[in-house]
Amino acid sequence: MHNPIILTGDRPTGKLHIGHYVGSLRQRVEAQHHYRQFVMIADLQALTDNGHNPAKVTDNVLEVMADYLAAGLDPAKTTFCLQSALPALAELTTYYLNLVSVARLERNPTVKAEIQQKGFERSLPAGFLIYPVSQAADITAFRATHVPVGEDQLPMLEQTNEIVRRFNALVGKEVLTECQPILSDTGRLPGIDGKAKMSKSLGNTIELGMSAEEVKQAVFAMYTDPNHLKVSDPGQVEGNTVFAYLDAFHPDRMLVAEMKAHYQRGGLGDMRCKQVLNDCLQTLLAPMRARRQAAIADKRQLLSLLQQGTQQARLLTDEVLAEVKSAMGLDYFAGLG
Amino acid sequence: MHNPIILTGDRPTGKLHIGHYVGSLRQRVEAQHHYRQFVMIADLQALTDNGHNPAKVTDNVLEVMADYLAAGLDPAKTTFCLQSALPALAELTTYYLNLVSVARLERNPTVKAEIQQKGFERSLPAGFLIYPVSQAADITAFRATHVPVGEDQLPMLEQTNEIVRRFNALVGKEVLTECQPILSDTGRLPGIDGKAKMSKSLGNTIELGMSAEEVKQAVFAMYTDPNHLKVSDPGQVEGNTVFAYLDAFHPDRMLVAEMKAHYQRGGLGDMRCKQVLNDCLQTLLAPMRARRQAAIADKRQLLSLLQQGTQQARLLTDEVLAEVKSAMGLDYFAGLG
Repeated sequence: MHNPIILTGDRPTGKLHIGHYVGSLRQRVEAQHHYRQFVMIADLQALTDNGHNPAKVTDNVLEVMADYLAAGLDPAKTTFCLQSALPALAELTTYYLNLVSVARLERNPTVKAEIQQKGFERSLPAGFLIYPVSQAADITAFRATHVPVGEDQLPMLEQTNEIVRRFNALVGKEVLTECQPILSDTGRLPGIDGKAKMSKSLGNTIELGMSAEEVKQAVFAMYTDPNHLKVSDPGQVEGNTVFAYLDAFHPDRMLVAEMKAHYQRGGLGDMRCKQVLNDCLQTLLAPMRARRQAAIADKRQLLSLLQQGTQQARLLTDEVLAEVKSAMGLDYFAGLG
Repeated sequence: MHNPIILTGDRPTGKLHIGHYVGSLRQRVEAQHHYRQFVMIADLQALTDNGHNPAKVTDNVLEVMADYLAAGLDPAKTTFCLQSALPALAELTTYYLNLVSVARLERNPTVKAEIQQKGFERSLPAGFLIYPVSQAADITAFRATHVPVGEDQLPMLEQTNEIVRRFNALVGKEVLTECQPILSDTGRLPGIDGKAKMSKSLGNTIELGMSAEEVKQAVFAMYTDPNHLKVSDPGQVEGNTVFAYLDAFHPDRMLVAEMKAHYQRGGLGDMRCKQVLNDCLQTLLAPMRARRQAAIADKRQLLSLLQQGTQQARLLTDEVLAEVKSAMGLDYFAGLG
């Protein structure tokens, strides 16, 4: 058996928000105490649909690094790395692309959904079509055994394992390692406007680095039950963003259960609920904000942290590439010394 | 203006033959005296349609190197290099893939024709679809200004120059260099069976390293005019392989013209023509065979030659990659030293 290795990461296209915290950062902070964990800033992947605006990607690399430290990821336990500074990933992608058919890529349900969502169609960048193969390169280059994903990303891991099996069969030995998903049990956190997707462009997020005042404003602007007009009216909890957030963040489950019952029978006002949520989010975010400010104040140090992790990751990924090339007979110069 | 740089090369999927000599090797031997010339053994490209049989590629790398020396390419004048040992090429491909649409790749006439010819269809390997982008990476990584191609390969250079213009426009400076074709004026040499395509799998080639006896056998097995039954009969020169070869190889143009006239009016036998061709090919191939034998007898030295050239090529291609990344803002760690 292989020692568990987790690979995870983010596309650096904006600052991270509490949706990321609930969906992944929180689990990473926990996992770093128990597993070897690599967190990769996926700038190459972000470029597959921002090829014409690289600054959107490059400007956010250090912002995301700051968010990682803010969330509580510890450079002594988690290895941070930068995708574009790991040349083995592009080389592995090149080799794997010969083992995957265009038809197979076009059938990938995740890619299909994303193509539609992003409105590509005929202008689909080639880099975007093949990104599942690039992801297979990422995962296998780290010998990752576990990859945290949402349900919608499962086809990506299937694609990776298909490549792993095909490659190992081709060379007749177990060079590459199959991975398994760690499925997140938390649903997706809605935006503060109640919309399903939290996104910077919709302006409905609460970023980890927001000031106390900005957080408060966001909480008090939150979408609740539009029919809950008077405090004494019975209110609805389903689809009520404030309760979705209380469920996600409030440490006192009993209190939240009582509030829900009270709200449903009438007599609990939106303002009161928002105050409770605001207190809870301020408590959660205050130390993150402090860590984030300290981190971003010394960009050179932040960059250096990323560089150190990337150097470690480079050793590992170069080693896997060397094994792959050797298994294919592409280590021509090995004997020359 | 840029100093002229020629990039050319071959897919190492078999030994080179006199078709290669006429179509490209001869021109390279001439060009090496006047230009900076890189000759790349394109093992990565060969893998795009031999992904499931890497040995077919790797087994032929040194054979092709030996053929280069046999043909008269001089390591002191021509830089030999190995594609898979130049990581910048895969990285550049990754970046360029984001600037090219899938639709554009599917429209590429060369790729379309090759897909049909190789019988891919639904099982088209993704690596094969994108190989024009990988070729753009090759050409630009060497800052090649001139690429020798046949007519059928012109769309590949158009694709490259499209990427060059798109990239330079994106970053607002002339990082990449456009290239122009050197069109070969010689038609394609037919196989010894008269078929248009000379190929190892059809067994209709004359390899540079064949023994004198094998060359003779091939010449005397050559397709001529099937209706030229008696020496005294008038014979046809068009579609007659022996005359196609005499045109391609015989240094005495007057003699060949006389032979053609004699053959057409009757009285010149196939055997006599084949003797003339055999003499001429033996003269051409004898020194090549000797150089080839010497080269292949010391594989370590041959490999070392390839390694030395590859190291030079690596410096150049890494430099271009660094400029590309820097222009995109991907040189995050540059300031850290």
